[in-house]
Amino acid sequence: MMSRAIQLAKRGIYTTAPNPNVGCVIVNDGHIVGEGYHHKAGEPHAEVHAMRMAGEQAKGSTVYVTLEPCSHYGRTPPCAEGLIKAQVSKVICAMVDPNPQVAGRGIAMLQDAGITVEVGLLEQDANDLNPAFIKKMKTGNPFVQLKMAASLDGQTALSNGESQWITSSEARKDVQHFRAKAGAVLSTSQTVIDDNASLNVRWEDFSTNLKNQYFKDALRQPIRIILDRQSKLTPELKLFRSESAVLRVAESNADIHVTASEKGLDLEALFSQLPAHHIDHIWVEAGATLAKSLMEAQLVDELILYLAPKLMGSDGRGLMGALGLDSMSEVIDLDISDLRMVGSDIRIIAKPRWKASN
Amino acid sequence: MMSRAIQLAKRGIYTTAPNPNVGCVIVNDGHIVGEGYHHKAGEPHAEVHAMRMAGEQAKGSTVYVTLEPCSHYGRTPPCAEGLIKAQVSKVICAMVDPNPQVAGRGIAMLQDAGITVEVGLLEQDANDLNPAFIKKMKTGNPFVQLKMAASLDGQTALSNGESQWITSSEARKDVQHFRAKAGAVLSTSQTVIDDNASLNVRWEDFSTNLKNQYFKDALRQPIRIILDRQSKLTPELKLFRSESAVLRVAESNADIHVTASEKGLDLEALFSQLPAHHIDHIWVEAGATLAKSLMEAQLVDELILYLAPKLMGSDGRGLMGALGLDSMSEVIDLDISDLRMVGSDIRIIAKPRWKASN
Repeated sequence: MMSRAIQLAKRGIYTTAPNPNVGCVIVNDGHIVGEGYHHKAGEPHAEVHAMRMAGEQAKGSTVYVTLEPCSHYGRTPPCAEGLIKAQVSKVICAMVDPNPQVAGRGIAMLQDAGITVEVGLLEQDANDLNPAFIKKMKTGNPFVQLKMAASLDGQTALSNGESQWITSSEARKDVQHFRAKAGAVLSTSQTVIDDNASLNVRWEDFSTNLKNQYFKDALRQPIRIILDRQSKLTPELKLFRSESAVLRVAESNADIHVTASEKGLDLEALFSQLPAHHIDHIWVEAGATLAKSLMEAQLVDELILYLAPKLMGSDGRGLMGALGLDSMSEVIDLDISDLRMVGSDIRIIAKPRWKASN
Repeated sequence: MMSRAIQLAKRGIYTTAPNPNVGCVIVNDGHIVGEGYHHKAGEPHAEVHAMRMAGEQAKGSTVYVTLEPCSHYGRTPPCAEGLIKAQVSKVICAMVDPNPQVAGRGIAMLQDAGITVEVGLLEQDANDLNPAFIKKMKTGNPFVQLKMAASLDGQTALSNGESQWITSSEARKDVQHFRAKAGAVLSTSQTVIDDNASLNVRWEDFSTNLKNQYFKDALRQPIRIILDRQSKLTPELKLFRSESAVLRVAESNADIHVTASEKGLDLEALFSQLPAHHIDHIWVEAGATLAKSLMEAQLVDELILYLAPKLMGSDGRGLMGALGLDSMSEVIDLDISDLRMVGSDIRIIAKPRWKASN
């Protein structure tokens, strides 16, 4: 039942931000009597959809929900209160609310009303539903995914700069889903100009099995955040033909201002400003220079690496740029969380294991 | 039944060379009445083991065999004759004999005796059992697997040469199985000296599920073929403490003589001499220089690449060395045939798609 609730929650992956994805299944007498998921911020929570469907049968039921029911009056009344009114018997939550300010309050409200509560069923899967929401709640900082593409021998281009195309069209389509989920794409003016890139979501490139109506209706185009210290962006670029916002980042005369050093713009300062722009999940598409800066500042939560079945030779352009490491103890270690083929390419998702900063 | 025959054939993977791996299952009235596999050159073929087990019940049976039954008198009488004498009704072979001199003869013998023959069931799996045997029969040349290990960004060492250890102990154990299957390991004196490497098979490092008695009893230690143009190998190296042969390759005063150019020893000439040494399957472990030479000479049948979840920076030592490519149309394309995790590392098996030589 919790697995079903998690599947339901995933229907909102492109649409609920900044709210989390939540799914709910209500079971009475061994039968599913209600189910639902959160569609979009401002619309009802998962539990409300499920309770509406269950109606009178919610009484005495067991409720499976992927996140602790809320306890606060927001744009909707607290779900914990709704569950109490509906006289459910038991609530099983996959995880507690990650917001330390309210964690456990919804559970306490339910228990105070005599409802049995269990926590932790499929907790890891529930966590994986909402990495950006959870990181924002716990740290205040956005969740950062860095996308890179290279040959099997780690080259992003030949020495003359030629790189089209290293990866297959399937890999380039796969990127669309990540852009849509993140809601914000970070790149540099250099990359935008080199490829005349839109960095938007092309609905026609979404894979068929995800072309559900509930995705399309509420699909957001990502905000494009472009590092443009030297004011290279010009209005005729494709970037500006897409409907969603472009936020230029520079030291002055830009949408977001951050200081710069010889290493470039201060990325940590940039990221700390993004929540104010309602951005808590960033998908980075750029070259080795930005990748290296993000890695050296330990600002990457996930690396999404597409490796094409090609060998280009070590005289091409390397994935990471020079890191200047002197010892194997200094290398960046990662944990691989997903490995699969996407078309003819390999896709690796890996989380850097950051060492304590010096 | 053919799938079972292929499983049986695999029991001989470390022991049958230079003979192929073959499995056989005999079915009468819906029941398996006999099965067997080829253990070792000079010992009975798979069909003989299966017929011995079936006894009288071979009469009127259907025989599943992974390779066309042999038609010639070698160290054992022809299996086709044995099947005719046993009065089987039907023979299903996964593939015909890859030797163009005898292909189809066994099948013709069976058909002439009134036995129904079908060919092609699970043909690809049967092919994959014996890549070296098939290549030798079709081309006369050995099957070459190139093993490499690198970080996710394609580095085999830091700029100072430090590289121990990039990959996990599981990956290093996995290598043992490939060495054992190949029966011959090719490396350079530089690599041997740098690591004081034995390049033998450590039985204690075999993974538990493969520690079957039928593997251990007949396990061969691989022959070590070492490119040693400058006579750097010295007798105190660990290489010489292992029981199997070391074949030094140089222009003169060596076990195998080949000419050399500014690009190094002539590898194509070396490989053409190896069948005379009963070597038809080579597992290459070496650095970027030999890897590059093999790739440029289009001598690699399979690349086995271990990628460790690490980022080392593009200022390290690259996987392939400089290939000097000027256009994406010149890159080496591969087809990925296997992708999996081995311990914490990624293992990729890929076949180069050689373009017609210029």
